[in-house]
Amino acid sequence: MRKFAIIGVGHVGAAVAFTLVTKGIADELILIDKNEGLARAEQLDLQDMQGRIETRTIIKINDYSELADADILFITAGNILAYAEKDAAGNRWAEFEYTKNIVQDIAPKVKASGFHGVAIDTMNPCDAITQYFQENTGLSRQQVFATGTFLDTARMQKVVSDQFDCDPKNVSGYVYGEHGESQFTAWSTVRVNGLDITELAKERNLNLDDLEEAARRGGWEVYSGKGYTSWAIATCAVKLSQAVLSDARAAYICSCYNEKYGTYVGQPAIIGKNGVEEVTTLPLTAEEEAKFKHSADTIKEKFQTFDKQPN
Amino acid sequence: MRKFAIIGVGHVGAAVAFTLVTKGIADELILIDKNEGLARAEQLDLQDMQGRIETRTIIKINDYSELADADILFITAGNILAYAEKDAAGNRWAEFEYTKNIVQDIAPKVKASGFHGVAIDTMNPCDAITQYFQENTGLSRQQVFATGTFLDTARMQKVVSDQFDCDPKNVSGYVYGEHGESQFTAWSTVRVNGLDITELAKERNLNLDDLEEAARRGGWEVYSGKGYTSWAIATCAVKLSQAVLSDARAAYICSCYNEKYGTYVGQPAIIGKNGVEEVTTLPLTAEEEAKFKHSADTIKEKFQTFDKQPN
Amino acid sequence: MRKFAIIGVGHVGAAVAFTLVTKGIADELILIDKNEGLARAEQLDLQDMQGRIETRTIIKINDYSELADADILFITAGNILAYAEKDAAGNRWAEFEYTKNIVQDIAPKVKASGFHGVAIDTMNPCDAITQYFQENTGLSRQQVFATGTFLDTARMQKVVSDQFDCDPKNVSGYVYGEHGESQFTAWSTVRVNGLDITELAKERNLNLDDLEEAARRGGWEVYSGKGYTSWAIATCAVKLSQAVLSDARAAYICSCYNEKYGTYVGQPAIIGKNGVEEVTTLPLTAEEEAKFKHSADTIKEKFQTFDKQPN
Amino acid sequence: MRKFAIIGVGHVGAAVAFTLVTKGIADELILIDKNEGLARAEQLDLQDMQGRIETRTIIKINDYSELADADILFITAGNILAYAEKDAAGNRWAEFEYTKNIVQDIAPKVKASGFHGVAIDTMNPCDAITQYFQENTGLSRQQVFATGTFLDTARMQKVVSDQFDCDPKNVSGYVYGEHGESQFTAWSTVRVNGLDITELAKERNLNLDDLEEAARRGGWEVYSGKGYTSWAIATCAVKLSQAVLSDARAAYICSCYNEKYGTYVGQPAIIGKNGVEEVTTLPLTAEEEAKFKHSADTIKEKFQTFDKQPN
Repeated sequence: MRKFAIIGVGHVGAAVAFTLVTKGIADELILIDKNEGLARAEQLDLQDMQGRIETRTIIKINDYSELADADILFITAGNILAYAEKDAAGNRWAEFEYTKNIVQDIAPKVKASGFHGVAIDTMNPCDAITQYFQENTGLSRQQVFATGTFLDTARMQKVVSDQFDCDPKNVSGYVYGEHGESQFTAWSTVRVNGLDITELAKERNLNLDDLEEAARRGGWEVYSGKGYTSWAIATCAVKLSQAVLSDARAAYICSCYNEKYGTYVGQPAIIGKNGVEEVTTLPLTAEEEAKFKHSADTIKEKFQTFDKQPN
Repeated sequence: MRKFAIIGVGHVGAAVAFTLVTKGIADELILIDKNEGLARAEQLDLQDMQGRIETRTIIKINDYSELADADILFITAGNILAYAEKDAAGNRWAEFEYTKNIVQDIAPKVKASGFHGVAIDTMNPCDAITQYFQENTGLSRQQVFATGTFLDTARMQKVVSDQFDCDPKNVSGYVYGEHGESQFTAWSTVRVNGLDITELAKERNLNLDDLEEAARRGGWEVYSGKGYTSWAIATCAVKLSQAVLSDARAAYICSCYNEKYGTYVGQPAIIGKNGVEEVTTLPLTAEEEAKFKHSADTIKEKFQTFDKQPN
Repeated sequence: MRKFAIIGVGHVGAAVAFTLVTKGIADELILIDKNEGLARAEQLDLQDMQGRIETRTIIKINDYSELADADILFITAGNILAYAEKDAAGNRWAEFEYTKNIVQDIAPKVKASGFHGVAIDTMNPCDAITQYFQENTGLSRQQVFATGTFLDTARMQKVVSDQFDCDPKNVSGYVYGEHGESQFTAWSTVRVNGLDITELAKERNLNLDDLEEAARRGGWEVYSGKGYTSWAIATCAVKLSQAVLSDARAAYICSCYNEKYGTYVGQPAIIGKNGVEEVTTLPLTAEEEAKFKHSADTIKEKFQTFDKQPN
Repeated sequence: MRKFAIIGVGHVGAAVAFTLVTKGIADELILIDKNEGLARAEQLDLQDMQGRIETRTIIKINDYSELADADILFITAGNILAYAEKDAAGNRWAEFEYTKNIVQDIAPKVKASGFHGVAIDTMNPCDAITQYFQENTGLSRQQVFATGTFLDTARMQKVVSDQFDCDPKNVSGYVYGEHGESQFTAWSTVRVNGLDITELAKERNLNLDDLEEAARRGGWEVYSGKGYTSWAIATCAVKLSQAVLSDARAAYICSCYNEKYGTYVGQPAIIGKNGVEEVTTLPLTAEEEAKFKHSADTIKEKFQTFDKQPN
């Protein structure tokens, strides 16, 4: 029996929930939100659809004790309105003071519940808040990871595939680093239809920086148009969880702990039943390695600064 | 190749779109919205998830000419904010003046596009606006129908299944009439686990009126908690469309034209490749038949009143 | 994590396995067969497809100890060739001496494994062998049930829907009794598009006996054409298992223990996490009740006769 | 509406059919087989399952005129028994004289039907028979292609992923050439978890030839264990067809026409609505290029030899 829990049923949490229910992935689903009316509304809306789909998911709300035997916990709480007000420049760090408060609220409850599954975070600033959650729950670094640049990589795949008129799944390779401004596409890892993109770019006089910028800005276009992003981030989160449940040992990029740089950061990993089974070190160019270090340092530094601030 | 179009990508339209993409149902999907930024944002969010799912859907926006060869057109435009302001009492008719305007805008464009597939409406007041859309596009009554009480029936199934601690799919039977206040559950049609609910209610001293009220109020609970409803209504709409595409000749309740009462109203029908293949007349009790007439009359009367008002 | 095991990977077992893998239902799957080469071949064929589907299933073979924490065990062993030779008349009882031997072989191994999930049988003679398996493993009657007339009911739905030119899912009601010659369609339970079939039959001068015969013979048509049946029976078995895993409390007909008649027999039940949560007693006509008793008696009598025979 | 046809409903054709139905991919499905009883049996078995799945597929048999508006045609006829007798050494060319006869029978009928969709072949010898079918139907080389080494590549992914204890989907790269003995893994294209396998092999003292042999022999292990192969080949065929229907422009290896070598052969291509949209030329090593030429030459030579023989 596959048991999932979601803390925070805003747009992302609700889209994760709907995905798990409509595709018959979850046997049991626990929705937790401080806004009781919202949790109840999402529960009802999902229950109302049960008569119209082939599978069934038992859906409960706002009971932390249910986490004791949950396989997967999604952390998707946020405060997008506060975020919007404070963050004209589109910097996810602006969310940190809100999301830190949220983690301070939920971490002891998760700990007390006896949860011992795998936790997947989508909250922002993604890398920092995941580390913060991991530290505050006492769950292992294997058990706690985040979507991180798994989403940015999907956006890069979309942007590149548009350029080459092909399926985004034809594009391999990764966006590394922070799920934020210091992220970068490691072009040396990127292939399109099996071909090295740096070669293709030369042939076609393509400016890869433009593609990178388009990928980085992708989320903001969605955000500015609909006020939040939901489908792609939810799809990424669910995909990661499926790899855990089936012990797939799938190679995905996500935000997980980097021993060398001492921080959570977007990097390729092997995802299986324990969460992050292994971090994969790909041969980056010197320039990419420097960008990776810079991005990791950025996360670490901001994390420490914010950590010291009063909430 | 399955080609779908959606006019109106608010919460319902977007949930329909996501369902079609995440379950691999649509090969091609056209999103149309007056808010260009919103249409673009939903397109991008759905495209960004393409690298993370097995199937692919080509997604285009805001081009009515694409309707010429679309199989299914969902009409899901609305103005939930205006609705919320005007409608303290939770009456879907309050939306009519807005949605009429919308239909007056889109109907000629749909007509001009050469669309000749099947149109499924979710806009409110559902029965009236569907008729209004049908009349204004010149599409046949077979080709145009609405979710209507397919959703209310799903809610009734949920409420009844809670009472009997079983799968909502174990509950057969229908909520007839208006997708609004005058709807009613035709209890003579309802069976739970194969047993007549009127008998069960006697044995257990159950008040069916309470269940009916709970079912009728279901949507408002969702609406008050999250500000709109999306998952169940989208799931209903998609399910109806699938019956059309596969010419399933499935028995579903929906809002379609009733010859006897001269109006669109929620009643059982057979859904196939032409849309409403047939209306099914079930033997109702005299009291139910009277309620059905009353509900149909309500729709017809309000429709005529509003039709005469200036927009 | 959803863990399934299958004992017997002939055509039915293999079709169950493929369904579980291709639809992403199983996280882990154990295949057990006395023919080691066959188990290995099915494992390989299913593993070879893993690179081409979205989900992953870990597949192991021939290790009874894996049953200790399996959620679902399908019993699908058989000897279709022996069956074919011996059984010109198409009587499933001819399989009993073979399948009894199989149960005598596997029951102690299942018992020793510590299996404590739910076992679903598809072997023939279905009702008798399920009881035999239940008695020999010491698993509870709740935990052990069989597809029984769930398949025959699907065939009845198909035959009736052909007659009325509609979706088989529009046909409700059940085929009761033995998964064999003494089965019968309880027409008083059958509705087509919500309408009582006995009324419809009168209106249309339809002979329901002809439809019943067509339904009963359905399996033999498949069998004579391809030498076995696989897709429908596998689909039925998987559907039952899904109701267990999600604790759906779904109303399905299946072969389970009838207290009144003292035998396993096809009757409606509620399927949930414990297997058969409840047997449902529908109001049958006197004639139907007599047929049900006769069918149950047939199973019981043959079961006792065969039970006394040497293997 | 997605319309598929299958010529030949042996194990592969039936597994393709079941996949299309159970996953709700096909709206309409035409099964064609010289053995009328077999076609009827598969039709019935698939129809019998319709009452147990969410979607519906209309299934017809043995009517070539239905091909006129089919989107996809699978050619899956074969004579596995004759094949088994004649081919102790496991050489797919032994099937050619049988499958040529089949093509000579079906090609004129396909041509006469007005079929103008995309044809996907799984018959053996795969590369030659596909060319033979293409030439005999007059369909374009874009419209006709075969699974070819798409299956062998899946097997290579499985074998490599076992070695590295990871998800087969983590393995990129291709098996090129003949779907037969002269095929080869182009190791220079293969990456595991994003890492170059030739580097990994050096580090771990891995013999890639052993892995290649295991991949090449994979099919024969399945074949020897169950008498045929079905799940993986059917899954490959369906995946290719889905790329056509959604115009995915997906990068898959398949057997398609190579201009340079003048033959159908397994090589990477872009699959979209027209079938093979483009052939992709990856930078192979000189040794790999030589093997590719050799494999292509082998196909061409045998094709010409057999073409001249009497049937």
